[in-house]
Amino acid sequence: MRIVYKYIKKMDGDYIHSLEADRWLFHADLVVDKAHVVMLAERGIIRAEEAAAILKSLQNLQLRSEVFIERELPNYEDVHTAIESWVTREVGDNAGGRMHTARSRNDEVATCIRIALREELLRLMKELNELRRALIERAAENIETVMPGYTHLQHAQPTTLAHHLLAHADAFARDFARLIAVYERVNVSPLGAAAFAATGFPIDRERTAELLGFDSVLENSMDAVSTRDFVIEAVSCYANLMTNLSRLAEEIILWSSSEFGFITLPEEYATGSSIMPQKRNPDYAELIRARAGSVYGCLLSILSICKALPYSYNRDLQEVTPHLLRATEISMTSVAVMRGYVTKLELKKERMAYEAKVGFTTATELADTIVRETGLPFRTAYRIVASMAEEKGHEHGETNIADADLNRIDEFSVRITGKRVSELGLTPESVKEALDIVSNINRRNVTGGPARKEVMRMLRAREDDLNRDDKLRGAKEERVKLCLRELEREVERRIQTLHN
Amino acid sequence: MRIVYKYIKKMDGDYIHSLEADRWLFHADLVVDKAHVVMLAERGIIRAEEAAAILKSLQNLQLRSEVFIERELPNYEDVHTAIESWVTREVGDNAGGRMHTARSRNDEVATCIRIALREELLRLMKELNELRRALIERAAENIETVMPGYTHLQHAQPTTLAHHLLAHADAFARDFARLIAVYERVNVSPLGAAAFAATGFPIDRERTAELLGFDSVLENSMDAVSTRDFVIEAVSCYANLMTNLSRLAEEIILWSSSEFGFITLPEEYATGSSIMPQKRNPDYAELIRARAGSVYGCLLSILSICKALPYSYNRDLQEVTPHLLRATEISMTSVAVMRGYVTKLELKKERMAYEAKVGFTTATELADTIVRETGLPFRTAYRIVASMAEEKGHEHGETNIADADLNRIDEFSVRITGKRVSELGLTPESVKEALDIVSNINRRNVTGGPARKEVMRMLRAREDDLNRDDKLRGAKEERVKLCLRELEREVERRIQTLHN
Amino acid sequence: MRIVYKYIKKMDGDYIHSLEADRWLFHADLVVDKAHVVMLAERGIIRAEEAAAILKSLQNLQLRSEVFIERELPNYEDVHTAIESWVTREVGDNAGGRMHTARSRNDEVATCIRIALREELLRLMKELNELRRALIERAAENIETVMPGYTHLQHAQPTTLAHHLLAHADAFARDFARLIAVYERVNVSPLGAAAFAATGFPIDRERTAELLGFDSVLENSMDAVSTRDFVIEAVSCYANLMTNLSRLAEEIILWSSSEFGFITLPEEYATGSSIMPQKRNPDYAELIRARAGSVYGCLLSILSICKALPYSYNRDLQEVTPHLLRATEISMTSVAVMRGYVTKLELKKERMAYEAKVGFTTATELADTIVRETGLPFRTAYRIVASMAEEKGHEHGETNIADADLNRIDEFSVRITGKRVSELGLTPESVKEALDIVSNINRRNVTGGPARKEVMRMLRAREDDLNRDDKLRGAKEERVKLCLRELEREVERRIQTLHN
Amino acid sequence: MRIVYKYIKKMDGDYIHSLEADRWLFHADLVVDKAHVVMLAERGIIRAEEAAAILKSLQNLQLRSEVFIERELPNYEDVHTAIESWVTREVGDNAGGRMHTARSRNDEVATCIRIALREELLRLMKELNELRRALIERAAENIETVMPGYTHLQHAQPTTLAHHLLAHADAFARDFARLIAVYERVNVSPLGAAAFAATGFPIDRERTAELLGFDSVLENSMDAVSTRDFVIEAVSCYANLMTNLSRLAEEIILWSSSEFGFITLPEEYATGSSIMPQKRNPDYAELIRARAGSVYGCLLSILSICKALPYSYNRDLQEVTPHLLRATEISMTSVAVMRGYVTKLELKKERMAYEAKVGFTTATELADTIVRETGLPFRTAYRIVASMAEEKGHEHGETNIADADLNRIDEFSVRITGKRVSELGLTPESVKEALDIVSNINRRNVTGGPARKEVMRMLRAREDDLNRDDKLRGAKEERVKLCLRELEREVERRIQTLHN
Repeated sequence: MRIVYKYIKKMDGDYIHSLEADRWLFHADLVVDKAHVVMLAERGIIRAEEAAAILKSLQNLQLRSEVFIERELPNYEDVHTAIESWVTREVGDNAGGRMHTARSRNDEVATCIRIALREELLRLMKELNELRRALIERAAENIETVMPGYTHLQHAQPTTLAHHLLAHADAFARDFARLIAVYERVNVSPLGAAAFAATGFPIDRERTAELLGFDSVLENSMDAVSTRDFVIEAVSCYANLMTNLSRLAEEIILWSSSEFGFITLPEEYATGSSIMPQKRNPDYAELIRARAGSVYGCLLSILSICKALPYSYNRDLQEVTPHLLRATEISMTSVAVMRGYVTKLELKKERMAYEAKVGFTTATELADTIVRETGLPFRTAYRIVASMAEEKGHEHGETNIADADLNRIDEFSVRITGKRVSELGLTPESVKEALDIVSNINRRNVTGGPARKEVMRMLRAREDDLNRDDKLRGAKEERVKLCLRELEREVERRIQTLHN
Repeated sequence: MRIVYKYIKKMDGDYIHSLEADRWLFHADLVVDKAHVVMLAERGIIRAEEAAAILKSLQNLQLRSEVFIERELPNYEDVHTAIESWVTREVGDNAGGRMHTARSRNDEVATCIRIALREELLRLMKELNELRRALIERAAENIETVMPGYTHLQHAQPTTLAHHLLAHADAFARDFARLIAVYERVNVSPLGAAAFAATGFPIDRERTAELLGFDSVLENSMDAVSTRDFVIEAVSCYANLMTNLSRLAEEIILWSSSEFGFITLPEEYATGSSIMPQKRNPDYAELIRARAGSVYGCLLSILSICKALPYSYNRDLQEVTPHLLRATEISMTSVAVMRGYVTKLELKKERMAYEAKVGFTTATELADTIVRETGLPFRTAYRIVASMAEEKGHEHGETNIADADLNRIDEFSVRITGKRVSELGLTPESVKEALDIVSNINRRNVTGGPARKEVMRMLRAREDDLNRDDKLRGAKEERVKLCLRELEREVERRIQTLHN
Repeated sequence: MRIVYKYIKKMDGDYIHSLEADRWLFHADLVVDKAHVVMLAERGIIRAEEAAAILKSLQNLQLRSEVFIERELPNYEDVHTAIESWVTREVGDNAGGRMHTARSRNDEVATCIRIALREELLRLMKELNELRRALIERAAENIETVMPGYTHLQHAQPTTLAHHLLAHADAFARDFARLIAVYERVNVSPLGAAAFAATGFPIDRERTAELLGFDSVLENSMDAVSTRDFVIEAVSCYANLMTNLSRLAEEIILWSSSEFGFITLPEEYATGSSIMPQKRNPDYAELIRARAGSVYGCLLSILSICKALPYSYNRDLQEVTPHLLRATEISMTSVAVMRGYVTKLELKKERMAYEAKVGFTTATELADTIVRETGLPFRTAYRIVASMAEEKGHEHGETNIADADLNRIDEFSVRITGKRVSELGLTPESVKEALDIVSNINRRNVTGGPARKEVMRMLRAREDDLNRDDKLRGAKEERVKLCLRELEREVERRIQTLHN
Repeated sequence: MRIVYKYIKKMDGDYIHSLEADRWLFHADLVVDKAHVVMLAERGIIRAEEAAAILKSLQNLQLRSEVFIERELPNYEDVHTAIESWVTREVGDNAGGRMHTARSRNDEVATCIRIALREELLRLMKELNELRRALIERAAENIETVMPGYTHLQHAQPTTLAHHLLAHADAFARDFARLIAVYERVNVSPLGAAAFAATGFPIDRERTAELLGFDSVLENSMDAVSTRDFVIEAVSCYANLMTNLSRLAEEIILWSSSEFGFITLPEEYATGSSIMPQKRNPDYAELIRARAGSVYGCLLSILSICKALPYSYNRDLQEVTPHLLRATEISMTSVAVMRGYVTKLELKKERMAYEAKVGFTTATELADTIVRETGLPFRTAYRIVASMAEEKGHEHGETNIADADLNRIDEFSVRITGKRVSELGLTPESVKEALDIVSNINRRNVTGGPARKEVMRMLRAREDDLNRDDKLRGAKEERVKLCLRELEREVERRIQTLHN
């Protein structure tokens, strides 16, 4: 008995294929074929009737694409060959053989990848903006939800959940900015570069670029088929995005632990245990965290593969595409799952507020208050507060703010400076204010701070940014759609001529 | 129209699954279930009839496994749940519900991965030994096939193809040594560790280990479910192996280029061009080279995923398995393809021999001869020969050995030392011998050198090593088979009781 | 005797330091201190005399910086502490202790990294543009230098060195575009975010941003200290750039091999052998190729380090900086070395031209010509030419163009189509033109093709692009310089008050 | 003013050097030189007086090594050249020029790396065993220290700190096993392979191997200089080790947080904050966690560098060594720091015991008890307990064990099965025992379980394993020392002849 499932069907025979990538590229290849054939006909490189016949067979194939992809595609060397064979079967060798005039699989596949990736990027940016919106909305609901802020996972200073969530939203806004910059370097047309050396046929590269919704032509024909820098760039952006997601995922995992107890996981994003009936596990968040690592691996694979390849096309480049596909899929779905978490997490606000006070989190503000009220230098105030904290120890839940009254501060101040801070101007009121969590937070109202007023300002600004970004993205999507619709119209017009 | 193929079916729903890994583990899970149930019955934890009923339903499932894997598996959360559901449907809640007694998915999946990986390793080692054999055989045929040896891809000294191929064979022998060491750390049983904290049921972990062909028990129950160090180790070995393969692949690519022209690619491992009718491309070698990068990515992903995970099991570990599977598949198929190349490459020996002389490759031996014959220090001899080489320039094909006669050497010797080497003992015969490619090679007969005699010795030694390694591997495979056969017998014996 | 040099001096003690990064950040930290102190004084948070005293001591330190960095810095926990200690020694605890008011090392170090990186980016972009210029100039000299173009490292079609070098120049132009986009996300100010929670002091973050030459404030204070996405983005760009460099380096290595023999290495970028006197090795190109791998490692390390870090600052982030530094240094020097190669390589044009003809490289154009002249479909023409190529074999240097005359073509055409192409309109002249390397190249004059005219057009366009990019870069550099000069002036003005 | 410290001194000139690696290899190079010269003299390849003179100058250099490494080494191309120059200056061109007879820098550097790495591995294994010992000792002290065990960072079942620490000790034991396996593949001698093609001089490779303490000769001369598989293997082991360390570091970080509060950090391994006086941060643990990522980067760099290098030596290999050095240093120091943590952590046992009960951690044992006592199938018992847990909710600290008495269980049992478990045999005593943390733990006494008795057994076994491993390591170290001492004696004996 063989235990391992026989996933390796034909040891050698399959080695050269990349079926999942071919499936991904199928529809892109169809439109590339259409645009190429339309242009060939326009330039008189093939005859109008031949073009119409080819286009009609491509439309037929499109109607049957689901079945074709599942059943026939696996039998061919690649998606390009599969489609060409279909066309040749439908329209005969004479016309069918002309579709590949003035191009090569090298420029064809590069064009297909760019079209598919472009579409994925548009969709990913949409998902990402929805995540940003969810964060902003959740922040808006929690301007007064107090929680401990951490450095080194130690309590540091109190903050609000709104301030915390907006920090993540801002990180994702930069991810958006990176993605739209990638989009611009992706959406250029290598079509017409042929094998790498262009062609002697009088093709019109600007025309196919236009028909396919590209923003411009990637000119140098050797560069056009050799480079995968746009893939490296896209997957680098994914890696950055996944890092940001993994950090938020880590917080969800921590917050849902028994020890933190800040949140209850939404049931859709938690699972039970096969053996421990009481468990509610943050599996989805763990998988987001893990899949960041998977995307890093994709990036690294792509870099290693592209390293030191002499120009122009080498078959190694085929191995790049599945990594792009996988990294794209992971990024897209992870963003969607994270939006689910952000939207549906239940908060245990009392617990958060309780912990906000534990660990003498107001120490910094107390030191700052001493500086402001007494004119002592910061380092001196720091030493006074530090020695108070030292004495109180670091026991769990033990160090809290109640007892840091003016007398105690005076006591430590005398030890260190020989003077009482109360005599230098520190009042019981200002001590109390420094130690009150809410006043403490609201005092920090400089640009970017957690104070209520500043958070309100940021919320409005972030919403504006998001709307602007979304409009930008929408305009790009619209342009692509318009071009492709125009291409379809042109294709139909030409097919029409057959029937007349 | 949507261009990209809809590979993402249910955005969230699928996020948690890992179907390809579940398929890989299906048969392993069946035997684990059997061994566990047999042990539970032996220890009286479940009743003999219940055990027999469960085992029978597992046998039934095994018969239907092809269909079950394709059609039913995708509907369940994971392979473990799918099998448990089948059993419960067949034997009822009462008996079926007992199969999972005293274990958890945490130890179950760790056990399954080890069983599946063990089998893959045994197979990979077999393939690898066949590659080693092919290299040794090809070397044996080419003891006198002269070729240039390179450093920095520059001609350095002449060598033979036998010596060159044996270098690769020795590297792969070390890969074998690493793999068999991994095997030993893989083939230990985590079963019985349950969720991480073992169980209060009086199970017998040694017994299930024995039934499943493990060499021993992985004791500490928290360690047993938390660690994936064996996966890291296995994929590290693959990365090393793929690096070795990529280096040989690079040579195949270089040698088949027009400029080198050392080999003709076997037709099965070459492809044509869609546009350039004269091409014969080394696509398979390029893919081996590229896939080394893919395996690096798998390794890196696994490391990143495991980094900083607190004990014990975290869902992140699920994301490790597909990388292991992919890296295993790539390594296995790449070894097989490489064997094809090694076996079927056609050599252009004249071209190799011609290039062996180009570039003054005998310069080192000439300098060494001057040292030996005249007693000049090496650095002086080096300078004499270097200045000769300098003068002759580095033009293509131009610097060759014919004209480095004793007179010329004397001329340069006088310039540098003020003395003639011919007067210090250098004879025309020894110069000639140094410059003759074949004597030049055969003179280098120290341990590991390219001289005919030494290569013959190494060939015999390597064949012995290979046979010894293969026996070692075979013994391990045999033991696993015996244990599993014994398990099957025990299962059948227990099912038999049902019918009586 | 201990063999290994004792690089690990104090096992534990040193573990926490990062000396090389601290050196890198020293000057940046000085200006940050100055800007912060000026702003504190302006807002009345510290007194004018205190500010003046602190600023004077910072100026003193700046004058002694070389010595301080070498001798004193290693004795402190980090660069921030070292500078604060200096200031405190010079101006006393009272004034010195105020410098750190209203900030933390968390925002300070993030600000320093951005300032240092900004400067490196400006310099790297300058180096990169010089490399682009060198490529364009070298291309301009070689519009008629014929060479084989490769796919799969096999001869494919003839092209020119100009076309080939411009392909690389275009790739580097995209690297420039990426770097300047990174610059914009780097040059924002985290200063004032303090530990992560901003501060209750009435600081002016916009003012310090302006004084330090930042383009804007990185607002959310938690985001400002937690993120290293700009480092990931910068190193991602380096990885892309190094990949491009490694591909050109690989070509230099290949071209300088005996088998290719296309170039002679410039002496400054080649080395000899300690044992083989005749060698001239492309060591620098090999190191560029290798160091691409080192930059990948840096990127990967940074990603792994940042993965799953909960907000806000964690000490892990310290480990990011040395990787950034190393990757920056490698990229910078590699670009400079590559420019040296590009400028100084000597070409062996005859050898290149000879190889341009070997391997039936004109086959594609011949097939295309048949299509154009006879109206046969491309696939049919392809088959005719392919069968000719097949018959002629793939022997080294053997397949060349001389004998592919019209008669031969007719012969194969008859076998395949039953018709003579000569009767379908193919003329001996057009065959000759297709097979002539130079006409063959010049016929391919579509956008981006290798034809002389198109290459001339691209040369002019690329030069314009380069000048525009350089102006853009220069403007950014200028703005930073102006701001820092203004800061110096403000500092001096305040120090002046001390003397009056 | 230039802000960035000028770390790049001579842009091009330095590009080719690798100073830190040269320092690391200096002492290794000295012994390699000695062994080589002794052998050359023994074989009559150089004269006894020449050998003695060279050896004497090498001894002189050794005495001055500190100064030489710091001041002179940086002026040479590499360490080999630096030493050769020293010798030539001391003994004159004639004798000095003979030291490099019959070898090349290619075999020399490979030999040096293996010697240096061998020493590091011996030391690392020693450090690692001390960490294992610390874990075992700490475990022995904490057999009764109860704590929650986690899956998915959620409370799962109670365990003891001893069981938890032993899990880590077992993982490190496997790291030891891997390292000693690497050692065996590292400690083989490439010396005598020369540039890659061996040599015509009648050298004795076995003799130099013996003098240098190698276990055997790495035979094939092309393989010997081309391979860096032993570096990949070593750094892979480091990566595995660092992963294990990072997981324990993560736990230290979690446990020292305010929310967990399980431990107090030892002062030597904690730092304060520049702004928050009350903080005690786990910086060292954070750096261990981060540096795992740095080692991954080293591994990845090495793999990418070695990928697709044609045989034999390429300069790329030089770039491998600094990554090896850095990864070695990180691993060594991280192990040492971790031992410090393990030894010095202060436990807050009450807090751990308190949390062990929170979250219904005894649920699994309760379900198991129901199965054992009543004969219900596991899935049914699981459902009864799960629905109890469900009802009680997941509030922080709320779900605990007190109220899960027999009546409650009956209530849920009736809902699900229609029967009372009390009537099926479940007694209040067995419920109580299942819910009592200590009995609960002690019941799980199968192989590898947390029960006191089993943990005691494992403690003894682990100590034996550790002692055995340490003996194994010691024997290897001893052999190397003996060989090198013998070499020194031989060197001195030969120098002695000079004075007679």
